[in-house]
Amino acid sequence: MLNSVTDALRAELTSKLPAAAFRELTDAYLHEPRGRYHGGDGFLIAPDCTQDVALVVRACAAAGVGIIPYGGGTGLVGGQVLESGPVPVILSLERMTKIRDVFPNENVLVAEAGTILASVQDAAEAVNRVFPLSLASEGSARIGGNLSTNAGGVNVLRYGNARDLCVGLEAVLPDGAILNGLSRLKKNNTGYDLRHLMIGAEGTLGIITAASLKLFPKPAGEGAALMVVLDPQAALDLLSLAGDLLGHQVSAFELINHMGLDFLREVGPDVRIPFAQAPEWMVLIDVGCVAGVEPSQALERLFEAGAERGLVSDGVIAQSGAQREAFWTIRESIPEANRRIGSVSSHDTSVPVGRIPEFIDRAGAALARVDDFRINCFGHVGDGNLHYNVFPQKGKSRADHDHQRAEVKRIVHDLAVDMGGSFSAEHGIGRLKVDDLNRYGDPTKLAAMRAIKAALDPKGIMNPGAVVAG
Amino acid sequence: MLNSVTDALRAELTSKLPAAAFRELTDAYLHEPRGRYHGGDGFLIAPDCTQDVALVVRACAAAGVGIIPYGGGTGLVGGQVLESGPVPVILSLERMTKIRDVFPNENVLVAEAGTILASVQDAAEAVNRVFPLSLASEGSARIGGNLSTNAGGVNVLRYGNARDLCVGLEAVLPDGAILNGLSRLKKNNTGYDLRHLMIGAEGTLGIITAASLKLFPKPAGEGAALMVVLDPQAALDLLSLAGDLLGHQVSAFELINHMGLDFLREVGPDVRIPFAQAPEWMVLIDVGCVAGVEPSQALERLFEAGAERGLVSDGVIAQSGAQREAFWTIRESIPEANRRIGSVSSHDTSVPVGRIPEFIDRAGAALARVDDFRINCFGHVGDGNLHYNVFPQKGKSRADHDHQRAEVKRIVHDLAVDMGGSFSAEHGIGRLKVDDLNRYGDPTKLAAMRAIKAALDPKGIMNPGAVVAG
Repeated sequence: MLNSVTDALRAELTSKLPAAAFRELTDAYLHEPRGRYHGGDGFLIAPDCTQDVALVVRACAAAGVGIIPYGGGTGLVGGQVLESGPVPVILSLERMTKIRDVFPNENVLVAEAGTILASVQDAAEAVNRVFPLSLASEGSARIGGNLSTNAGGVNVLRYGNARDLCVGLEAVLPDGAILNGLSRLKKNNTGYDLRHLMIGAEGTLGIITAASLKLFPKPAGEGAALMVVLDPQAALDLLSLAGDLLGHQVSAFELINHMGLDFLREVGPDVRIPFAQAPEWMVLIDVGCVAGVEPSQALERLFEAGAERGLVSDGVIAQSGAQREAFWTIRESIPEANRRIGSVSSHDTSVPVGRIPEFIDRAGAALARVDDFRINCFGHVGDGNLHYNVFPQKGKSRADHDHQRAEVKRIVHDLAVDMGGSFSAEHGIGRLKVDDLNRYGDPTKLAAMRAIKAALDPKGIMNPGAVVAG
Repeated sequence: MLNSVTDALRAELTSKLPAAAFRELTDAYLHEPRGRYHGGDGFLIAPDCTQDVALVVRACAAAGVGIIPYGGGTGLVGGQVLESGPVPVILSLERMTKIRDVFPNENVLVAEAGTILASVQDAAEAVNRVFPLSLASEGSARIGGNLSTNAGGVNVLRYGNARDLCVGLEAVLPDGAILNGLSRLKKNNTGYDLRHLMIGAEGTLGIITAASLKLFPKPAGEGAALMVVLDPQAALDLLSLAGDLLGHQVSAFELINHMGLDFLREVGPDVRIPFAQAPEWMVLIDVGCVAGVEPSQALERLFEAGAERGLVSDGVIAQSGAQREAFWTIRESIPEANRRIGSVSSHDTSVPVGRIPEFIDRAGAALARVDDFRINCFGHVGDGNLHYNVFPQKGKSRADHDHQRAEVKRIVHDLAVDMGGSFSAEHGIGRLKVDDLNRYGDPTKLAAMRAIKAALDPKGIMNPGAVVAG
C-alpha cells in the first residue's frame, strides 16, 4: 500500500532540488485530452536533469510514495492521470528538452525525454534527415511519452513503431538507479534488452529520461495521392500492388470512409474533398521515393495498374507539396470531427492485415443488432490498425447511448481478439484498458508481467494502477 | 543448486514422450564450431511439438534439473554447451521444423523454432518474398537459435537484426507455461514486450518454440560492386554517400582488408580477386533496387560520385548474378581462411559507426606494443560491427601467443567499450563472455537482469551458467 506525499517528503525534495523544479499544479496536469479522466491531488516536480529525476525516485521509493510520470499529457488511455488513492508525485519531463547530440553520418540523434516530438523532427530536418515518427499530437507530445507508450502514427508501415526508432535508452528505474543505455550502436548483444522492456511499459517500470533515436536519409522526392477504392478488400489489394510496384517507398496507406467526410461536412473542420462526390471508401497513399523515381509518375503507374485490375475508380495525385499537405489535412481533421460529433465508443483495434474486410463486415453486423449507429472506421490500414469508432445517428447524442457503451466496446474488442487482433493497437493500456488486458491477455504473459513488475518495482511506486494493476 | 538428471526423471520423460523424441547424444551436441567448449554428459530430448517442450520443462522444473536449449549448434560463444556441473537435459528443437503458415499478402511467415534459417529463406522465396536474415551458417543454424541470440549477419544495415524481423513469439517459460504470442499484428500495445525480452536472452528465460517472421517484397533488381577505398574513413564517407544517392536500397556494406585476401592466398579457400593487385581496403556493396532504378547503373553513379570525391580509386560492378555471387564468395570465405590460419584472439566488436577509423588506428597501435601480430579486421562496417581478429605472423602459431591472449582480448574490449562500443556486437554472451559482461556491463542493467532472471526462473534451470551466471 502506498503513502500520500507527506510534508516531510515535500520538505526533503524542496531542499534538494532547485526552486525551478517546482511548478503550480494546474488543471492541465490532471486531465486527459478526451476529458474522461480527472486526477486528484499531486505534488508536481519537473527536474531538469537525470540526476534529479533519480533523486526524486529514490526519495519516493524510500517514502513509499507513488510517481506519475508526465510527458506531453496527450495519451488517450488515462496513463498520465491518477484519479484517486494516496497523493502521488507527478514527475513532469517538461524541463528536460535538450537535444544532447546529433550524429548525421550515423543517422542518430540523442534527445532528452521531454523534447516535443515536433522538435525532434525539426532537429533531424536541420541535418537533412528524417525522424519519421508522426502523429496528430506531435506538436505537444514528448518523445519520452512516445517511447513509454510505443507510439504508432502514420508512418509505421514504412518505419515501424516508436520502439523500432530507438537504438538506446537512459532511464531511472524504480529504485532510483540510472540505466545508462544511451548507446548509439546498431549491434550490441550484451544481455537482456531492457530498452524494449521499458518501451511500451507506460512508466510502470521506470522513467525514460533520454533516448538515442534513429534518423533516416530524406527521400529524394515525396508525393501523395487520394484514390477511390471499391471497398476495404480493394484497398488491401491496392496496398499489395503498391508493395510490388514501389517496394518500401510507400510511407503511409490510410483508409478513409465516407462517414469521416460526412462528419467533416456536418461539424467541420472545413476541408475540401477533391472529388465531385464524397466516395464511400478512399485511401491516402504517401510515398517517399529514391533518386530516379519521380513520385507523381510512380503514383500514376500505381493508379493505372490499380484501375486495370478494377481496384480504383478515381484518383487525384498531388501536383505540389501544398496539395500533398491538403490531402493530409483531410485525414488529420477526421479525429477532430469525431470529437465534435461525440462517439458512443471509440476503439483502437488491429487485426491481421488480410482480415480487415472481414472485421469491418462482422463488426458492423454485430453492432447493427444493438442499435442504429453511425460507424466511422478509418486509419492505418497498412498496419492492420483501424480506429473503429461508433457514433449516434444525427439528432441523437452520446448520452442517449450511455447504457450501450459497455456492450458496444465488448462486441468490438471480442471480435478483434477472436480474429487474432488487438484491443489496443497503438494507444496502450493506461488505466482505461486494464480490465481488457486482464480479460483478453495471455495468462502466461500476464503472470510474467506481474513477476517482472514485482521484481523491478517491489513497492509498486511507478505509475500505480496503470497496465498491471493489482 | 541444480540436480543431475536422475533415473526417475529419465523414466518419467521416457514414459510420457514418444520414442522418436529420444536420440543418441553424439559428439555434435557437445562441442561448438571453434572447438573451444566441450560438454559433459546430458540427456538429449528432441520434442516435436510445443506441448512436449512444455512437458519436459515442467518435469525439469519439478526435478530442479537444468536445461540446455539446442538449435543448430552454430553459436560462437558456448551458449549451447555446458562443460561441467550437474547433468542437464539437452533440449533440441531439431524436430520442430514446420513452416506453420505463410501469409504473402501480409508479409508474414510462421515457423517453428527448429526450422533451418535457409529453409525460412526458401519458404519466403517460394511466395516471391524475402526473409533477409542472412549469415554464414544459414545452412545449419535454426531460426529459434537465431532469435534467442538476436543474430545479425550481412543485411542488418537495411533490414535490422533478428529481433527486428520478428513480429510474434511462442515460447515455453521456465515454469513450463506456454507463452502464446504468435500474433502477426504490426501494432499491438498490450503490456510489456516479452518478445524482445526472450529475443537475445540466449535461452536463459525460456525456450522459443515458434515465431511469426517479417517478410519483404523482393527488390525489383539486385546488384553488387567491389570498390577499392583509400582507408576506413573513405569507406564510411562512401557509405554516407551511398545513403544520400541510393537511400535504403543499400542492403550490405562490408569492409575487407588486404589481410583477409592475403590469408585466402596463403591457406585458401581459393577465390579470385578481380583486381590486379589485392587492395589495402575494399568494400563490398550490395543493393536491392526498386522498379525504375537499374542496379548496375545505380552502382556506377555511386562509383563516379565516390571517385569525384577521391574516396574510391578502382571498382568492379557485377554484370551478372554469378559475378555478384563471386563477390560474396570472397567475403564469405574470409572466416574460413581465418580458421585455417588460427587466430590468437578474435573479437566481435562494435563501435559507433563514425568512430570506426579511430578504433582501427588505436587498436592496432595498442596491440603493436604487445607483439608483432597480423590483424584481419573486416565485416559489417555499415553497422559499426567489425570482426577484429588478431593472428600470429607467418611461421608462428596460435600456441606461441597463448600467454598473450588474455591481454590482447582485454586491450580490444577495453578500447571498444571506452569508445562507446560493445565487446559483443552480434555473437552474444553465452558462456564465453560472462566475465566481460560483468566487467563492462552497466551495473543497473546487470542488477535488473538478475532480478528478471530470478523472477522468471527462480530455480535457475534455463541454460544455467549462460549470460547471467551466479
